[in-house]
Amino acid sequence: MNKTPAIGVFDSGFGGLTVLRALLSHIPSARYAFLGDTARLPYGSKSRRTIARYAAESAQFLVREQGAEFLVIACNTASALALDAIQDAVPVPVLGVIEPGAASARAASQSGDVLVIATDATVQSHAYATACRSQGLRALEKACPLLVPLVEEGWTQHPVTAEVFRIYLDELLHQAAAEGMSPDTLVLGCTHYPLLRPMIEKAVPAGMRVIDSAEATAEAAAKLFHPHESVERSPAAQISCFATDSVEKFERLGSRFLERPVGHVELIDLGG
Amino acid sequence: MNKTPAIGVFDSGFGGLTVLRALLSHIPSARYAFLGDTARLPYGSKSRRTIARYAAESAQFLVREQGAEFLVIACNTASALALDAIQDAVPVPVLGVIEPGAASARAASQSGDVLVIATDATVQSHAYATACRSQGLRALEKACPLLVPLVEEGWTQHPVTAEVFRIYLDELLHQAAAEGMSPDTLVLGCTHYPLLRPMIEKAVPAGMRVIDSAEATAEAAAKLFHPHESVERSPAAQISCFATDSVEKFERLGSRFLERPVGHVELIDLGG
Repeated sequence: MNKTPAIGVFDSGFGGLTVLRALLSHIPSARYAFLGDTARLPYGSKSRRTIARYAAESAQFLVREQGAEFLVIACNTASALALDAIQDAVPVPVLGVIEPGAASARAASQSGDVLVIATDATVQSHAYATACRSQGLRALEKACPLLVPLVEEGWTQHPVTAEVFRIYLDELLHQAAAEGMSPDTLVLGCTHYPLLRPMIEKAVPAGMRVIDSAEATAEAAAKLFHPHESVERSPAAQISCFATDSVEKFERLGSRFLERPVGHVELIDLGG
Repeated sequence: MNKTPAIGVFDSGFGGLTVLRALLSHIPSARYAFLGDTARLPYGSKSRRTIARYAAESAQFLVREQGAEFLVIACNTASALALDAIQDAVPVPVLGVIEPGAASARAASQSGDVLVIATDATVQSHAYATACRSQGLRALEKACPLLVPLVEEGWTQHPVTAEVFRIYLDELLHQAAAEGMSPDTLVLGCTHYPLLRPMIEKAVPAGMRVIDSAEATAEAAAKLFHPHESVERSPAAQISCFATDSVEKFERLGSRFLERPVGHVELIDLGG
């Protein structure tokens, strides 16, 4: 490809920067516009209709105002509840995080039994269980509501976080055993969780594969763009970040998720 | 008083049910309408203008639709940023949680130095520091963002929560010492924290007084209603609960905050 692709990345907050980070490593030669709809988060507590409207407005901003030719929905809730609405709202291809995560779990699992950890809203949608089932997998989902605030507190390598994760994992493994499952794969179904990956990989039983939906989504996107292009000789990516509120928190915490400075975050207004 | 007072209680979520619980114990003979603006939480990440509009709309619902003759703003963020706007929006008396908390700290403190723990948004507003200063107190505020999710996870007596609180408290005591303060009082500046009070009282240094803003606010409200009435012979209170979204979570978690069943929570629409 000679042309620099313009990729829009959307999340309700800034957790989706882990997806942008993965995209940068797989498609470094693109121009990226990232939008965090921070004024209207959390999406998880809102109705499907409201989420669909918010996500469609955000997608239209990225396509119409920022010229995005391809959209990545780096938000599990919007991927679970509003992917169709987003696809209807914009004339460009749209990729969510859930299907790639489930496909990656299918590739990794020998037993066909997988565990999924995510936020309460994502678990209640059962989007991962549905996507895994369509891949021929059995999935057991568990909400881990303390992990996001622990990541946002910066305690990604803290003993308290390791202890909280051990408690959640024990509950999940016990439930899996009670249901006669033999899980060999754990899917990280929340964009905040990749920051905990080193700690999670130490905690899981020997041999259990850890699948990161952010990484899986970036791999799926890369296949659509330059399957044969070598990453090494690509020019640097251009990144523009936008938020609908809380620019200060985005700038302060975002660099941890992106693993590079996010720079200036532009405040935009998408309405109420 | 012969007439049953009609008291409106407002919060952005359901944490303010701890204020309602305290009100029930001090003014058991009232008719209560509680509104949680759960569709639009968290207020903490929004601008002062937006919070003022949301809070004014919520206050008008309680006064116009529910006949409240007195309003308690059981939300630290709205009390800090929107008390004037609420007072302008309704023709009834309005009491926030911050002034009573500071007044209670003034009554408790011998040294004049107090510590305040709260959410990030409340700390950034410095509303407690300002209110304490006007009482002649020096206040040191600290955001404890993990405590709300730990309470919502139900881990109010969990060793992980005790450890997290110990870490926050150590940081706060070290900072106070570095600033030459001799704090003898700790203000719980978040409506979720009363559920942690037994654990907090065990953790603080010997002799430190723990002030609960919810309790202080209910005491202040009671003085306005029936200063001489005996609580014992009062009839049972009537409670109606309303929320703008997430009724299921409100019903599920609310009873822990209220220490009695919240019953049916009615979903209402205040607009976008």
